[in-house]
Amino acid sequence: MPQFGKVAIVGPGLIGGSIGLALKQRGLAELVVGVVRSAPSAERATAAGVVDATTLELAAGAQGAELVVACVPVGDIPAVLAKAAEVCPSGALLTDAGSTKARIVRLAEEAAARRGEGMAFVGSHPLAGDHRAGPESARADLLEGRTVVVTPTERTPPDALARTREFWTSLGGRVLTMSPEEHDLGLARTSHLPHLMASALAGMTPEELLPLAGAGWSDTTRVAAGSAALWRDIFVDNREGVLAALGDLENRLAEFRGALEAGDADTIQRLLAEGKHRRDALGS
Amino acid sequence: MPQFGKVAIVGPGLIGGSIGLALKQRGLAELVVGVVRSAPSAERATAAGVVDATTLELAAGAQGAELVVACVPVGDIPAVLAKAAEVCPSGALLTDAGSTKARIVRLAEEAAARRGEGMAFVGSHPLAGDHRAGPESARADLLEGRTVVVTPTERTPPDALARTREFWTSLGGRVLTMSPEEHDLGLARTSHLPHLMASALAGMTPEELLPLAGAGWSDTTRVAAGSAALWRDIFVDNREGVLAALGDLENRLAEFRGALEAGDADTIQRLLAEGKHRRDALGS
Repeated sequence: MPQFGKVAIVGPGLIGGSIGLALKQRGLAELVVGVVRSAPSAERATAAGVVDATTLELAAGAQGAELVVACVPVGDIPAVLAKAAEVCPSGALLTDAGSTKARIVRLAEEAAARRGEGMAFVGSHPLAGDHRAGPESARADLLEGRTVVVTPTERTPPDALARTREFWTSLGGRVLTMSPEEHDLGLARTSHLPHLMASALAGMTPEELLPLAGAGWSDTTRVAAGSAALWRDIFVDNREGVLAALGDLENRLAEFRGALEAGDADTIQRLLAEGKHRRDALGS
Repeated sequence: MPQFGKVAIVGPGLIGGSIGLALKQRGLAELVVGVVRSAPSAERATAAGVVDATTLELAAGAQGAELVVACVPVGDIPAVLAKAAEVCPSGALLTDAGSTKARIVRLAEEAAARRGEGMAFVGSHPLAGDHRAGPESARADLLEGRTVVVTPTERTPPDALARTREFWTSLGGRVLTMSPEEHDLGLARTSHLPHLMASALAGMTPEELLPLAGAGWSDTTRVAAGSAALWRDIFVDNREGVLAALGDLENRLAEFRGALEAGDADTIQRLLAEGKHRRDALGS
């Protein structure tokens, strides 16, 4: 017997589509409905087979849903969840897959509270995105072994947290729990700043030098191919976290600059060795 | 009939070993000798099958060699080439695989000139390195389709340039020709600065945040796993090029900072779109 009844995935792209595929292939849901914004998006999701049905109406998708997962760009998540909170059946669980958490959680908890008892939101962030996009790139095993950060607050009902953890675990994810603020400060350093750096490096490289780009440039700038609009929303949303992380980077670059200007080979090597040590700790 | 007689590869690691493997598999050389620094290195090169024979003595390796390729760290290349220029037979060609060129070319041309007529050096840089190292990682097709920058000067004999181009082309490389100075300024932006950035990002990330590292952090920092000593030499050698590139990066980061502090979503999106545009121009 499926673990979930109807599940609505708002935005069945890479992440949402992979969730849909995994739910379907593992027989975890009775019905997986994808809420899309346009007829072409509906066709793409259907062609990729990531949902059982599609609808252009959030209200229709959320109606009767036991679980709603908002997988749209972070700027759009609060509105999606607010609307879903109005139309979901009592007892439904709302969550999301956004790359920022503090603002989304604050707004979504307010929306859930307006609806009152029996409606719960728990923020989530599966660390499974990459530079690809769209339901065509979705894979049922995208979340397998990947970290999913779940961000409860003091307002989160314990059973809603348990169901959220169970949901991600059933898809293969490894759940980490932390506060929305802790998430945003951490992700600023492990995801948002890396994107900013990759974009800055790509953007400053004259096109005529691209024939000289090897594996280093290619790896280091790869994520810069991600959607500019999607990442704009993330930077706006987590402005303070990104600025703090950027400050750390500026300090580190200033250390490199000082050592280079002084021709201080020992300090250059120490800085490089510290970077290698940390990178080696992650593995490939 | 092989294209080359005896070829000496000084430092048969990832690059040198891949050159040796390719020469052997394609039947391009009568004999490939690896010059190594220690008995364990000799054993590794032999076990990996990247050369026909090994020697600890540069003089023995270079003696009778028609071609000597210096694949050691850039800080060691000038001394290797100076010694090789003394002991090679008349008419031998010297080249290297170093990631910097101006200083190496200047010193090696002086060494070749001391030996006089019939001895030529042409600087080379195959863009095929990555974060791995050692003969165990060598592949006969490592250079297939990869750019090899060859850096002649006004002192370079035309036939030596032609033989150098032919050598790399026979290994599958695509030769680009430019001056040593042009190479160093270009590579500062496409390779040395990306390494510095990757290292700075890895080094500034607290170890306890590594569980939050996804594909973005992993890709962006990958090259930071490279040898600290090897990259120290590159930074010291191309100090001015790297400082100029770092200045461009600092300016670009300052634009991001200004836009973030002002909450200027349009500028953030424009900067991101420029980065995406340049990254998309390269492909995956």
